[in-house]
Amino acid sequence: MDKKEIKILLQEVKDNKINVEEALKQLEDLPFKDLGFAKIDNHREMRVGYPEVIYCEGKTVSEVKDIIKFMLTKDNNILGTRANEEMYNAVKEICKEAEYNKFGRTITIEKKKQPLTDSYIAIVAAGTSDLPVVEEAYETAKILGNKVEKIIDVGVAGIHRLFAKLDVIRGAKVVIVIAGMEGALASAIGGLVDKAVIAVPTSVGYGANFGGVAALLSMLNSCASGVSVVNIDNGFGAAYNASIINKL
Amino acid sequence: MDKKEIKILLQEVKDNKINVEEALKQLEDLPFKDLGFAKIDNHREMRVGYPEVIYCEGKTVSEVKDIIKFMLTKDNNILGTRANEEMYNAVKEICKEAEYNKFGRTITIEKKKQPLTDSYIAIVAAGTSDLPVVEEAYETAKILGNKVEKIIDVGVAGIHRLFAKLDVIRGAKVVIVIAGMEGALASAIGGLVDKAVIAVPTSVGYGANFGGVAALLSMLNSCASGVSVVNIDNGFGAAYNASIINKL
Amino acid sequence: MDKKEIKILLQEVKDNKINVEEALKQLEDLPFKDLGFAKIDNHREMRVGYPEVIYCEGKTVSEVKDIIKFMLTKDNNILGTRANEEMYNAVKEICKEAEYNKFGRTITIEKKKQPLTDSYIAIVAAGTSDLPVVEEAYETAKILGNKVEKIIDVGVAGIHRLFAKLDVIRGAKVVIVIAGMEGALASAIGGLVDKAVIAVPTSVGYGANFGGVAALLSMLNSCASGVSVVNIDNGFGAAYNASIINKL
Amino acid sequence: MDKKEIKILLQEVKDNKINVEEALKQLEDLPFKDLGFAKIDNHREMRVGYPEVIYCEGKTVSEVKDIIKFMLTKDNNILGTRANEEMYNAVKEICKEAEYNKFGRTITIEKKKQPLTDSYIAIVAAGTSDLPVVEEAYETAKILGNKVEKIIDVGVAGIHRLFAKLDVIRGAKVVIVIAGMEGALASAIGGLVDKAVIAVPTSVGYGANFGGVAALLSMLNSCASGVSVVNIDNGFGAAYNASIINKL
Amino acid sequence: MDKKEIKILLQEVKDNKINVEEALKQLEDLPFKDLGFAKIDNHREMRVGYPEVIYCEGKTVSEVKDIIKFMLTKDNNILGTRANEEMYNAVKEICKEAEYNKFGRTITIEKKKQPLTDSYIAIVAAGTSDLPVVEEAYETAKILGNKVEKIIDVGVAGIHRLFAKLDVIRGAKVVIVIAGMEGALASAIGGLVDKAVIAVPTSVGYGANFGGVAALLSMLNSCASGVSVVNIDNGFGAAYNASIINKL
Amino acid sequence: MDKKEIKILLQEVKDNKINVEEALKQLEDLPFKDLGFAKIDNHREMRVGYPEVIYCEGKTVSEVKDIIKFMLTKDNNILGTRANEEMYNAVKEICKEAEYNKFGRTITIEKKKQPLTDSYIAIVAAGTSDLPVVEEAYETAKILGNKVEKIIDVGVAGIHRLFAKLDVIRGAKVVIVIAGMEGALASAIGGLVDKAVIAVPTSVGYGANFGGVAALLSMLNSCASGVSVVNIDNGFGAAYNASIINKL
Amino acid sequence: MDKKEIKILLQEVKDNKINVEEALKQLEDLPFKDLGFAKIDNHREMRVGYPEVIYCEGKTVSEVKDIIKFMLTKDNNILGTRANEEMYNAVKEICKEAEYNKFGRTITIEKKKQPLTDSYIAIVAAGTSDLPVVEEAYETAKILGNKVEKIIDVGVAGIHRLFAKLDVIRGAKVVIVIAGMEGALASAIGGLVDKAVIAVPTSVGYGANFGGVAALLSMLNSCASGVSVVNIDNGFGAAYNASIINKL
Amino acid sequence: MDKKEIKILLQEVKDNKINVEEALKQLEDLPFKDLGFAKIDNHREMRVGYPEVIYCEGKTVSEVKDIIKFMLTKDNNILGTRANEEMYNAVKEICKEAEYNKFGRTITIEKKKQPLTDSYIAIVAAGTSDLPVVEEAYETAKILGNKVEKIIDVGVAGIHRLFAKLDVIRGAKVVIVIAGMEGALASAIGGLVDKAVIAVPTSVGYGANFGGVAALLSMLNSCASGVSVVNIDNGFGAAYNASIINKL
Repeated sequence: MDKKEIKILLQEVKDNKINVEEALKQLEDLPFKDLGFAKIDNHREMRVGYPEVIYCEGKTVSEVKDIIKFMLTKDNNILGTRANEEMYNAVKEICKEAEYNKFGRTITIEKKKQPLTDSYIAIVAAGTSDLPVVEEAYETAKILGNKVEKIIDVGVAGIHRLFAKLDVIRGAKVVIVIAGMEGALASAIGGLVDKAVIAVPTSVGYGANFGGVAALLSMLNSCASGVSVVNIDNGFGAAYNASIINKL
Repeated sequence: MDKKEIKILLQEVKDNKINVEEALKQLEDLPFKDLGFAKIDNHREMRVGYPEVIYCEGKTVSEVKDIIKFMLTKDNNILGTRANEEMYNAVKEICKEAEYNKFGRTITIEKKKQPLTDSYIAIVAAGTSDLPVVEEAYETAKILGNKVEKIIDVGVAGIHRLFAKLDVIRGAKVVIVIAGMEGALASAIGGLVDKAVIAVPTSVGYGANFGGVAALLSMLNSCASGVSVVNIDNGFGAAYNASIINKL
Repeated sequence: MDKKEIKILLQEVKDNKINVEEALKQLEDLPFKDLGFAKIDNHREMRVGYPEVIYCEGKTVSEVKDIIKFMLTKDNNILGTRANEEMYNAVKEICKEAEYNKFGRTITIEKKKQPLTDSYIAIVAAGTSDLPVVEEAYETAKILGNKVEKIIDVGVAGIHRLFAKLDVIRGAKVVIVIAGMEGALASAIGGLVDKAVIAVPTSVGYGANFGGVAALLSMLNSCASGVSVVNIDNGFGAAYNASIINKL
Repeated sequence: MDKKEIKILLQEVKDNKINVEEALKQLEDLPFKDLGFAKIDNHREMRVGYPEVIYCEGKTVSEVKDIIKFMLTKDNNILGTRANEEMYNAVKEICKEAEYNKFGRTITIEKKKQPLTDSYIAIVAAGTSDLPVVEEAYETAKILGNKVEKIIDVGVAGIHRLFAKLDVIRGAKVVIVIAGMEGALASAIGGLVDKAVIAVPTSVGYGANFGGVAALLSMLNSCASGVSVVNIDNGFGAAYNASIINKL
Repeated sequence: MDKKEIKILLQEVKDNKINVEEALKQLEDLPFKDLGFAKIDNHREMRVGYPEVIYCEGKTVSEVKDIIKFMLTKDNNILGTRANEEMYNAVKEICKEAEYNKFGRTITIEKKKQPLTDSYIAIVAAGTSDLPVVEEAYETAKILGNKVEKIIDVGVAGIHRLFAKLDVIRGAKVVIVIAGMEGALASAIGGLVDKAVIAVPTSVGYGANFGGVAALLSMLNSCASGVSVVNIDNGFGAAYNASIINKL
Repeated sequence: MDKKEIKILLQEVKDNKINVEEALKQLEDLPFKDLGFAKIDNHREMRVGYPEVIYCEGKTVSEVKDIIKFMLTKDNNILGTRANEEMYNAVKEICKEAEYNKFGRTITIEKKKQPLTDSYIAIVAAGTSDLPVVEEAYETAKILGNKVEKIIDVGVAGIHRLFAKLDVIRGAKVVIVIAGMEGALASAIGGLVDKAVIAVPTSVGYGANFGGVAALLSMLNSCASGVSVVNIDNGFGAAYNASIINKL
Repeated sequence: MDKKEIKILLQEVKDNKINVEEALKQLEDLPFKDLGFAKIDNHREMRVGYPEVIYCEGKTVSEVKDIIKFMLTKDNNILGTRANEEMYNAVKEICKEAEYNKFGRTITIEKKKQPLTDSYIAIVAAGTSDLPVVEEAYETAKILGNKVEKIIDVGVAGIHRLFAKLDVIRGAKVVIVIAGMEGALASAIGGLVDKAVIAVPTSVGYGANFGGVAALLSMLNSCASGVSVVNIDNGFGAAYNASIINKL
Repeated sequence: MDKKEIKILLQEVKDNKINVEEALKQLEDLPFKDLGFAKIDNHREMRVGYPEVIYCEGKTVSEVKDIIKFMLTKDNNILGTRANEEMYNAVKEICKEAEYNKFGRTITIEKKKQPLTDSYIAIVAAGTSDLPVVEEAYETAKILGNKVEKIIDVGVAGIHRLFAKLDVIRGAKVVIVIAGMEGALASAIGGLVDKAVIAVPTSVGYGANFGGVAALLSMLNSCASGVSVVNIDNGFGAAYNASIINKL
């Protein structure tokens, strides 16, 4: 309701076309429906096809179950991240279609099949130890309706394996690079493709790796220009981000 | 040159259509021109419209001048980042069209006018102290051919100012958020828009800010899902990244 | 009581104006009541209504039980923080009225009902994962005799939920803000209310969160002016502090 | 303007007491002035007696001058923090009443004399080297209208000097403790007074002090319960916070 | 296959000595086998005597078993690092010759006896607590075909024990120094021998050792010139590196 | 054996007072027994009354048992630090007199009663949670033959309790201060006594305590001049150090 | 003097056994002499021969001059640390006898010649770059009345130079070890002498030295038992501490 | 002088072939010349061709001049690192042949031409900004008598440039990799060559680079096995190390 519409409303009051009570009711809702503030209210949850997301870590099995029970009353798809098997079993009791990705530790419930995108997200990972993050990213991207290509075990130390997969990586609309240890893969790929690269440092490593800090700093300081970074082990965030870009 | 073409070539040798020397020459170039490796060689610099970039910090005035002199022999636009005024003056001597953004510390030379994108990048910044990073991002985005909207001084501590600009931000195809101190703006905007948000922590602040680390960690840990992060004060990287996305 | 007064007192004894017992009583209190040192002695423990506090982490079950047994011999209320269920069960054996807050991990024994304050402390938290800290703060504030309002799950990523509760927050005399991850809520609220805000970073998060450091730095660097910070997960300290202010 | 007032307005339109244009104008301002959102807009700057604050560090002399010039058009008092002498001289040109605190590096312009509070803020500092932070806090507290008592050079290493001033400290409504090096003073005072203690770590020290980190961590881990902390060297923030509490 | 050989091949095609299909097959492999890019492909794994290496940490027992099963199909020796006893038992089921070093947590399978080098690697360690790293280095060096001398418990605090072994250390072609706590041994030996010293900081220690960081920094800052460093506890990397040097 | 003695020896050879073999034997030991280098060899272990020390953490039960078994063949007292109860039980089997301090996690075997020093070491601790470090220091000091006074629970937050014990602390020849959290006690005592203060930060605390780093930094930055610091939780080192001083 | 004794005293006054003046005198001293608090007041400044110390860093030239002017009114010796030459010149104007140590950056004013100790403090330093800290320690020790032996340039990388000076080091009553880079010298000496070793890490070094942190951590983790540590570059603190021990 | 020789000496004394004084003199030198300890004394400086090294940073111009003046009295070549131009000019006054490498900040004085090695050290650097470290390594390697190949500007972001130089790199006996920012080049090369790789992180970069820490951690965590690391910017150390290996 913009200025013009309010003017019309006032004119109608003046002209006795609507009574004061009715006009009041319409104006009352004004700041919540039509103005900046109102837009906030509705912007995310109402969007069709967006899944409800629950971060399970640090929650009890029954808390996870209860939250998902409540989510099931709505029409959205559901994604539980950092979920253990026990949580999954509890969820399974109330929802047969729930699926569990053991490596990615995700619970997914797809209530309405998402139409897949034509373009795809490439998820590239340095080593098999990065698999948990790869799978979290994969499940997130999938439930958000994206086509995904996974390219695993193409670390910088054996760079020829990376070259063998370059076509698949370059064919993507956006690339997620997942790497632990020194995280050099992000720079290598950032220099080889001309796509937005979302880098995920993983906590894979030991000693001066400091739980992923080495890879994180490496990626933030990438000499390749098109690389941005998400939190350590945050496969979900990378995929969520990539999904926004892939759907442009 | 794929398998089929090599077969044809061999057949031609066999049939004496071309001689051995000629065939050898063609095959010789094989791994550098047509295979994975060759693609690398040409992928970035040859792309039309991409500017040459020079990071001036830590270089001497005459080094900057020499490098840009060489760049001018090619046809690309040129972007110098972290350049001081002295460097600019030296460059100006060899190139009249060179322009300097004092706040952003960028030298830009636009040899061919770039066609602007229809969609735009929103550059949102928390405070006026973040201006140097804003301007670096702005000049980078512009020379890459992007339409840009700058929204300054909309920090979280005065959140109503942010709301007043929400429409402009939401209208963008991709959003760059630049903030120092506690960097909370990235989360706030990440929760309000449904676009990819590229967050740039700045070194603005003091004490436990640790030169931008507070904002960096804040942004990496953002509770909003669509946020990725680049290095502290890296306005260039954010804009480069945003440009890739804006042109999708 | 200075030298002159003591001399007068002694003269009165000599002159039989007051008897020895009475003089003794006056002198007895001397070093403890009138001098700097004496003030120290009495300032905290003797104050009516202040609870005895025991930090249970790192103590054995029987140590906790023994300490509380001793505390029960005095008249004060008792608050045990960071207590596990086993500790509670042991305490229950010696004190029927002991209550346990499972989330906040507090044991409370209210020997004399505290009169509640008229004004209230608002405890605002970003997410349900911050609940343990919320509950520790809540129990602490309650046993110190404060009226408390809890406002949960109003994180920055869904800022409209925060606005819906703004009146309750603004109605408080002092506000505790509890948030993990990037801790941006402290800045957002600090910018929206004109009350003293005591921020509690929580260790909720992962990766570059570094066990709450991200939120801690974020809060220390808050661009909002009225924010002060306590240790990571220190719900007790925040509530203790807030109680002092709420009772002004 | 609440529901009742809007109803009256509409009735006046209906009754032709005011015309549509005029009513429109009043309603137009509605969401910015009277509703939830509007409260935000006005909550800080409009408050009587609150000074405009400008953080001068990293700004040029002429930027500081321009901003203060603009501020002078409004009726509020003005506080510039982290200002150097050159900035002050520039400001002096446009405002004779501007005063400069050389140690605290503050510029203050008091356009209307503030009524002083009855209660006072105690600013306690460990050493004379902490003076810059002490003075920043002092000037901030004063321009916010608070009575202030400064107690300097009462570090923990000579604790008897602290005891000699205990009465003044205990008489305050809220206490600011400023200390560098190991910052132990905050704990010592926190254990001696029953007031809210706002601790300011300073960057005074060297080596493993790490620019104030030692004092910061010390204060965050204080074994005394009533201590909260602001950023390193943030005298302004501490005083702003203390002012809110002192005016309760 | 170099230029000359390709020419011969083409001549053979021309001369009908081999048919097109056959020549195609040989050329097809060209870029992967004989040219710059191809060298990459084969450079490491195919080298005679080089073991296959598997880093077992973070893998499940059955994953380790499966990977080694696959490795056994090739002719190389096998080294599993950071393996627990359960993994070893699983491997033993499929390969009788597998051996386990309990302290070094290595699984080794020596399919063809390596000829030993004449020169030797000296592995020098400060204390018995560094044994796990010593043994990992030892097993790695051995399976790579090196003669090794272990000199244990010669920490800097009892420097005479080190002197007693100086001849053995000086007789080596390259020296690995393994030390936790303050890691001073690397500097001491670096000052006493004229060989390349590869230093391995270990996570042995507590408190301000920070899991090996103290020793790491100490070694990186060694005042002795011939010292280079690998990651904390990385006995494997040190031995791999030393092996390259020992075989020069 | 100095120059004069060697000369005498040679004269005796010349004079046939001793034969060549015998003289050779005496000279053979020369560099190891009598010269600079030799002093090293014998300086510590041979000293009467010095205990053998074994750091048990990270060793297996049987390793601890074996090492102590070997130590028992010599005449010295024995101190095992960071030992668990299982280790103690194993040691008890081979040595009835072995004693265990459950809190300090020390095993002590006193083969010859040490004569006690006249002067004493004061061990002062902030809280009961610091007990494990207190007891480790206590057992170490005792087996080294020192008289010890323990003063517990005199933290800075209740400074009057500290004053009540000042005489005992001042009576000591050297003072060990053990404190976690913010470690302010070291500064407070350093300012109150004129003895060498050896400060031990403990890992007691949580959040921004970072496992004792807060206390460590606090103590290193102490504003009191006579304070030196040992590693976090290093009760043994502090007592060893104090013993050297106490015996001066 | 307890309750009973005061009662007796009062009875004596009453009975005229002692007069009021005499009783007053006894009571007068009560809070200042017999209680903890009184002792505090007198412990440091009044001690004969102790110098007044002023830390000059961060003070202005005129502040330093004023403070020393005031100090000169008392009878003590004076030590100014971290003083620059300009400060010294200013001090010289008001005190001819002031001396300046350029390397150590100390101003010393010896008003009464101190009697030297018989025993001496050994100050041992790794390299000539550590000289500033060596000289600060030296001047401090001297003005406190200690005999001092300096042993310079005996770093671990050339350990034979250290051995050549071992006798001098071992002859000391207490040893100060000053070293930058990896700080290994503290451990080496700690293992060679049986004296209390006070280690001073210096900020000499670069890169991963982190301004002395490498040496600091190295020294805190020393495998030698008799080493305690003071702050980075804190030559004053080490010497103050050593002086206390040397005078035992 | 071994056991046998001493026996002969004693026999000669006995047989009056040499007198006691003479024998004494020979024995006197024993521990310093022929035994373990003596070896230390002579091992490094006496070696022919080894340069004297002086680290100039933090020294005054005249100190550098004096030290080099003294060095010139010996016969060795001289290398000054981290020297500025002013230092060089001063040195030039006393030694005409002194040369200065402006980028590498080295002063070299080659008194006797070193015979060059047949094999060479490859110095590979990511970017032109790493030049100072490259040149320091280059000058060091050269004065130590090594043949050197420099390969500059082959960063990971343009990996094809690296491939073009692979043959030169693979031809080296040992490889130095110098890289700032994320330091990924070390891993890339470590995976492509089978030589010992000595990695030098440089402080080139900004923000979360933390003065070279990002590259340092990256290199320490390299997924390639043959990589060891020296301190940030330590071109000298890398070349010294490489020289030892190159001369094997």
